[in-house]
Amino acid sequence: MLSLDDVLAARDRVAETARHTPLDYSHTFSSMTGAEVHLKLENFQRTGSFKIRGATNRIMTLSDAEQAAGVVTASAGNHAQGVALAASRVGVDSKIVMPENAPISKVKATRNYGAEVVLHGADYDEAAAKAHEIERAEGRTYVHAFDDDMVMAGQGTIGLEILDDCPEVDTVAVAIGGGGLISGIATAIKAQHPDVRVVGVQAEGAPSAARSMEAGERVELDRVDTIADGIATRAIGERTFAVIRERVDEVVTVADEEIAMAITYLLERSKTLVEGAGAVTLAALLAGAFDYEADEVVVPCLCGGNIDLNLLTTVIMRGLVANGRYVRLRTVLQDRPGALEELVEVLAAERANIYAIQHDRTSRNIGMGDAEVELDLETRGTEHVEALLAELRDRGYEVEVLV
Amino acid sequence: MLSLDDVLAARDRVAETARHTPLDYSHTFSSMTGAEVHLKLENFQRTGSFKIRGATNRIMTLSDAEQAAGVVTASAGNHAQGVALAASRVGVDSKIVMPENAPISKVKATRNYGAEVVLHGADYDEAAAKAHEIERAEGRTYVHAFDDDMVMAGQGTIGLEILDDCPEVDTVAVAIGGGGLISGIATAIKAQHPDVRVVGVQAEGAPSAARSMEAGERVELDRVDTIADGIATRAIGERTFAVIRERVDEVVTVADEEIAMAITYLLERSKTLVEGAGAVTLAALLAGAFDYEADEVVVPCLCGGNIDLNLLTTVIMRGLVANGRYVRLRTVLQDRPGALEELVEVLAAERANIYAIQHDRTSRNIGMGDAEVELDLETRGTEHVEALLAELRDRGYEVEVLV
Repeated sequence: MLSLDDVLAARDRVAETARHTPLDYSHTFSSMTGAEVHLKLENFQRTGSFKIRGATNRIMTLSDAEQAAGVVTASAGNHAQGVALAASRVGVDSKIVMPENAPISKVKATRNYGAEVVLHGADYDEAAAKAHEIERAEGRTYVHAFDDDMVMAGQGTIGLEILDDCPEVDTVAVAIGGGGLISGIATAIKAQHPDVRVVGVQAEGAPSAARSMEAGERVELDRVDTIADGIATRAIGERTFAVIRERVDEVVTVADEEIAMAITYLLERSKTLVEGAGAVTLAALLAGAFDYEADEVVVPCLCGGNIDLNLLTTVIMRGLVANGRYVRLRTVLQDRPGALEELVEVLAAERANIYAIQHDRTSRNIGMGDAEVELDLETRGTEHVEALLAELRDRGYEVEVLV
Repeated sequence: MLSLDDVLAARDRVAETARHTPLDYSHTFSSMTGAEVHLKLENFQRTGSFKIRGATNRIMTLSDAEQAAGVVTASAGNHAQGVALAASRVGVDSKIVMPENAPISKVKATRNYGAEVVLHGADYDEAAAKAHEIERAEGRTYVHAFDDDMVMAGQGTIGLEILDDCPEVDTVAVAIGGGGLISGIATAIKAQHPDVRVVGVQAEGAPSAARSMEAGERVELDRVDTIADGIATRAIGERTFAVIRERVDEVVTVADEEIAMAITYLLERSKTLVEGAGAVTLAALLAGAFDYEADEVVVPCLCGGNIDLNLLTTVIMRGLVANGRYVRLRTVLQDRPGALEELVEVLAAERANIYAIQHDRTSRNIGMGDAEVELDLETRGTEHVEALLAELRDRGYEVEVLV
C-alpha cells in the first residue's frame, strides 16, 4: 500500500514541473462558517489542476527505456493536460487519446502542452480502449489517471504542502473522483499527524466512494450525473479504495446546487475560478455536510479551475438563482395600452432590477392579443423574491417562476 | 505635490488593514506577448480593490477630533467598500451615500464592512451633493475618492510592493479613472527608479486623462461609456493631473471588446476574476496599445475584482465571441420534412458544438411555413467560424451573424 516515503520521494520530482500552490486564509468563509478556513488554491496549479503532480511523478520514475518509448493515456479532462505538460517538461513523448466530442478548449490546451492528441471514439471508454491499443502497439507506458501508486504519491505532495503551510490544521477536505488525490493526501497527513481529519467529498450524482464505504466493497455505479465533470467517475480504483478505507475519516456528498453556489461565492468573494470538482469541498463546508467545531482549522482543497466558460455562465446563473439573487418569471399581459408600463412600475417600486424582458404574442395558451412576458430580474435574496411575488399576485398578475 | 516620503509614510498605516497582494509571474501571458509578464493581483485585496489603501491612509492621518467626528463619502463602487472597512478597522464612524439604483451587492457589502449606508439620489452627483450636506451638518470629514494627497499616498504603496517583489521591472501599467492610483504608484516608482516606465491605461469610452494629456490641461468629458465602470470618470482630479503630467510616461486607451477579452483570458488561463477597470492594463498589453521589447519585464496592475456577476456572464459571452469561440447565427429553414436535420448534420460535420437552438415560425420576413432558426454555437476560433459560414453558404443557406 502507498506509504509516506513514496510521497516524500515524490516531492523533489514534482517540484520540477509543478508549483507549490498558495494556502490562503479566507476572512469571508471563516466568518460565514465560524471555522478558520484556509483555502488550498490548487486551481492556480500549472495546467489548472493537481493532475500534473501525479503525472510528473509517474513519468520521472519510469526507467530510461520506458521513458524513451513514450507514454500514452486517455482523458477528456485535466489528466490529459497534466500528462502532456509533465511529459514534455521531462522530455518524454506523449500521446493522449480524447473522445471526438472533447471540448475544443481542452484539445487545444493539451496540444499546446506538447502532446500528440488522437481524437477517437464517442466516449471515454472508447478512447481508453484506443489508448490501450496504442500502449500495446507502440510499447508506450499507459499513465493511469488515479489507480497507480506513483500517481497517488505525486498528488500526495499537496498534503505535505498543507502541513508545511498550516501546521495547526484540524481538518482537510478533498474531492474524490477516482480517489488518487485523496489517497495521496491522506497518506501524507495520517502518517505524520493521525489526529488530523481527512474528509472526502463527492457529488451526489457520482457517489462511488461513499457507496463503496457503506458497502465495504468497491461499488461501480451504472451512471453518473453532476456538473462536477472532473469527479464524475463511475468507480474508484482498487488501490485507491484500499487507501481510502484505511486513512479517510468520512466521505460526504453535496448537491449540484451547492456546488454551483460555492463556485459563485469563490468567484464573487475570493475572485478565484474553480471548476465543479474544485468547489465540492467548500460546498460541503458551507452546506454543513460534515461537522466542525467553532474555530476549527479547516482546509478545503480547491483542486482545479478548468471549467468551460459556457458552463460557467450557466453555473453563475444557477448560483444566483439559488441565492435568490436572480429570478426569471413568466406572466401574461392583457391586450390594452399601458399594460407593460404598469408591470414595470410594480417592479420598480419593489426595487427589482430588470435584466431582460421577452415579450411573446404567439403563445398558444393565452387570449388573442394578450402577450406572454418573461422577465429576468436581479433581486436581493429569497425574502425579496417572495415579497415581489406576493405583490405581483396581489395586483392580479398570474406569475410563474421559471428558474 | 505628492512625494515619495508621503508614500513611504503610508506604508505602515496601510499594512494595518490591507494586505500585501501577490505578484505572480504568468507563463500564459509571457508566452502570448514575448514580454516577461508579472501580474500584480490587487483584485485579491481586501474589499476586492485597492481603494482600501488610500482610505486607510486618509482616515489614519486625521486628527483625533476629526476621527471622533467620523467620515462621509459618496460612491456606488469600490471606494464605498474601501472607506467602510478602513473606517471600521480604525474605529471611526462612517456614512456612505450611494445612489438609489446602486447594485444591491455593493450596498450589502458596504453595510457588512460596518458603514451606515444612506441611499439618496438618482446618480453619483446627487449622492455626492447629499454627502457634502452631511459633511457640513455633522462635521464629518469628506473622504475624496482620488483627489487627495493622503489617498494617493495610500494607493502608492502598491508601487513600493512592486519594486520590492520585482526589482527588475521595466514597465508598470496602471488604470486611470480619477487618477489617484497612478499618481501614487508613479510617485513611488519614479522617485526611486526614474527609468522604470509608468503607462496609464484608460477605456476608450472614458479617456479623460488621455485627452487632458493631449490638451495640456484638464479636460472634462460630457459623457462616459464603458464596461469598466470603476474608471468611468468624467474628469481626473486637479492634484492627480499635476502628478500624472510630471511622472507618467504615456497614457493609452483600450476598447471594451479588448477589455472583455482580457477578463475572459484571466478567468480561463489564470483562474482569477477581475473587473473591467482591473483588466484594462492587461488588455493594453495584449492589444499592443503600448510598445514593449522582447523579454521586457512588464507588470500590469490588476486593480480590482468587483464585477457584477450578471455583467460577467455578458462579458464572458462577448469575450468568447471576440475570440471566435462562440457565434450566434440566424438562418431560414424551408417548410419541408428533414430541413432542420440537414442543417444539424452540416454543423456536426464541421464540428461546431450546438449550444442552443431557437426556432421561430412567426417572423414576418420569411415565407409562410418557413422557419427562422437562431443557433448558438461553440466554435474553435475565427478561422473555424469563417469556414463554417462558407460551408453553410455553399449549401444554399442564407446566414446572418448576430453576435
